[in-house]
Amino acid sequence: MPRVPAIVWQNGLLKLLDQRRLPLEIIYLDCRDHGAVADAIQKMVVRGAPAIGAAAAYGMLLAARVYAVCGASTDSRVAGAACPASQQFDQFKQQLVLAAEELRRTRPTAVNLEWALQRVLAAVEQTGSPAEAVQVLEREAALIASEDVEANRAIGKFGATLIKDGDHIITHCNAGALATVDYGTALGVIRAAHEEDKRIHVYADETRPYLQGARLTTWELMQDGIPVTLITDNMAAWVMAAKKADLVIVGADRVAANGDVANKIGTYGLAVLAKFHKIPFYVAAPLSSIDLSIASGQDIVIEERAPEEVTHVAGQQVAPTGVTVFNPAFDVTPAALITAVITEKGVFKGSAAAGLKSLGVSR
Amino acid sequence: MPRVPAIVWQNGLLKLLDQRRLPLEIIYLDCRDHGAVADAIQKMVVRGAPAIGAAAAYGMLLAARVYAVCGASTDSRVAGAACPASQQFDQFKQQLVLAAEELRRTRPTAVNLEWALQRVLAAVEQTGSPAEAVQVLEREAALIASEDVEANRAIGKFGATLIKDGDHIITHCNAGALATVDYGTALGVIRAAHEEDKRIHVYADETRPYLQGARLTTWELMQDGIPVTLITDNMAAWVMAAKKADLVIVGADRVAANGDVANKIGTYGLAVLAKFHKIPFYVAAPLSSIDLSIASGQDIVIEERAPEEVTHVAGQQVAPTGVTVFNPAFDVTPAALITAVITEKGVFKGSAAAGLKSLGVSR
Repeated sequence: MPRVPAIVWQNGLLKLLDQRRLPLEIIYLDCRDHGAVADAIQKMVVRGAPAIGAAAAYGMLLAARVYAVCGASTDSRVAGAACPASQQFDQFKQQLVLAAEELRRTRPTAVNLEWALQRVLAAVEQTGSPAEAVQVLEREAALIASEDVEANRAIGKFGATLIKDGDHIITHCNAGALATVDYGTALGVIRAAHEEDKRIHVYADETRPYLQGARLTTWELMQDGIPVTLITDNMAAWVMAAKKADLVIVGADRVAANGDVANKIGTYGLAVLAKFHKIPFYVAAPLSSIDLSIASGQDIVIEERAPEEVTHVAGQQVAPTGVTVFNPAFDVTPAALITAVITEKGVFKGSAAAGLKSLGVSR
Repeated sequence: MPRVPAIVWQNGLLKLLDQRRLPLEIIYLDCRDHGAVADAIQKMVVRGAPAIGAAAAYGMLLAARVYAVCGASTDSRVAGAACPASQQFDQFKQQLVLAAEELRRTRPTAVNLEWALQRVLAAVEQTGSPAEAVQVLEREAALIASEDVEANRAIGKFGATLIKDGDHIITHCNAGALATVDYGTALGVIRAAHEEDKRIHVYADETRPYLQGARLTTWELMQDGIPVTLITDNMAAWVMAAKKADLVIVGADRVAANGDVANKIGTYGLAVLAKFHKIPFYVAAPLSSIDLSIASGQDIVIEERAPEEVTHVAGQQVAPTGVTVFNPAFDVTPAALITAVITEKGVFKGSAAAGLKSLGVSR
């Protein structure tokens, strides 16, 4: 059965699966301009670092389509034919830079967003007109999407070598097909192991406050027939001590040059628990999640979100009115707690900079 | 402002604050017989080991009052006056043993329940008639309640010596006035430190799946004006690493002879995290929570509760229909991870048996 895709580009519209409604409803939100995409990213209609990157690329394509038409018509009506084509193109590019800025502001932690924006802006620089830019952006956005799927399948292939028949695997948040264009990173590894007929069992942390594990990971794995047990986040330690847990695998929102990893809140604690219980802790992430411009995790900006995500669940108030809340969306796991990072080019340990070099990747 | 009590004995009725409705509504449930009390314990209207113990003692008083009247009237109608008083009393005591059995079955992990039942049954054995037994049980239940409050105040006094001015304290679940007859164990220590004018700040884990931290601990502390910040369980590690956390303090449902502690699910993971971050991990518990008949935590029965506690929050479904769930209500923290146990007789480290001896307590 084909998977329900998180991101669809169709007839000039970006359709985003509204992940806030899962698993109870499958509804797509139509985005007609980059503002709608920015809003969808901010409100977590679409989430997961690679999916945010691809959505942002399509957001830029939407912006280019709007500005290519509006910019020209405005010029012909107001500035008239006197406005030279080169000036029109400069104005178009400035509008795209502003659109990128709007998309960039939505969520600060995942680096794939910035990576995708830089990539499409660089592609626009290679063109000579708004019309050409639109064509190039359509190709570039599709390329970002297809490369992501390819990368995830490669991550799955490399990662599956680390999983044995009979393994029990703990995962956190959703680093699945829903967090990417398809297949997933951490869940891509799990999928690949399952496709190789390894008998695996997944424990999915529910992942408060946004419940990506309860809502998305269980749903994805159940659809693929992969055995999964839902637990609350605070049960992971007890699963390690009292049940069977052979490894932990998670995704990443940003990997710093020294190998520190920013990922969904709770990842760091899980890494500490894995260390204590002497089980491997793997991070699965495409190269687009690696940010060599950031020396260490200390320099990664951690987004804090609204208190209502904690005080309310599914619209129901569960905590006293006016209570003070601390709601960081991510945490940083130091490289020392990470057994290995699984990328589309191979598996590396420790420093990301050295790891890329060892894999023969130059950035 | 006086606290809203969890347990009230009034005009022959046991009134239990319905903790499932907090913090949104303050509603008492009236229990007229031990069956209603058993139901309330099972459904977590009343929860927390010491509160369950006290509620069970009053449940036995309700049973005694019912059987003292019904047993006599049944005898006079059916068996007639021929039934000797001693036989009537034997029958009455058998009915109480069955009532105890019904109360005992509700929740297996907290030892205070068993401790309270044994204590009231032993008290009944010292009496000679149903009427005398009712009088003695009324005194005994009241004594269990008042001793619990005294014990908590003593725990608070001993525990406060471990808290410094300016400390940031992480707590889990609710070991407060709501989990006891009044004042609380872990929150009793926090209250005592606050009453000594120490400037403390509490981080309350929300404590999934039942949200005792979000619903009860924040509410209790806010009512007393003690600064509190609500976090999800998976944020505790990040609070330790990135913010300030000086110590962890929790309650206990049962302490084994070797000092292992069964407490709300998530406690064990928190203890591992405290160890990793080199901050003290304290357990506050009355002597009634210590079970010397249990050699180690491995022998403690861990209650598993319904999957719906995890798949639904405040009545709203958040996980796919039919998902497999693991929902242990408690976990076991080995003595080696516990800095000290704070009791009403003093503070001990390591083995509970040796600890009691060092405190001059014979059991």
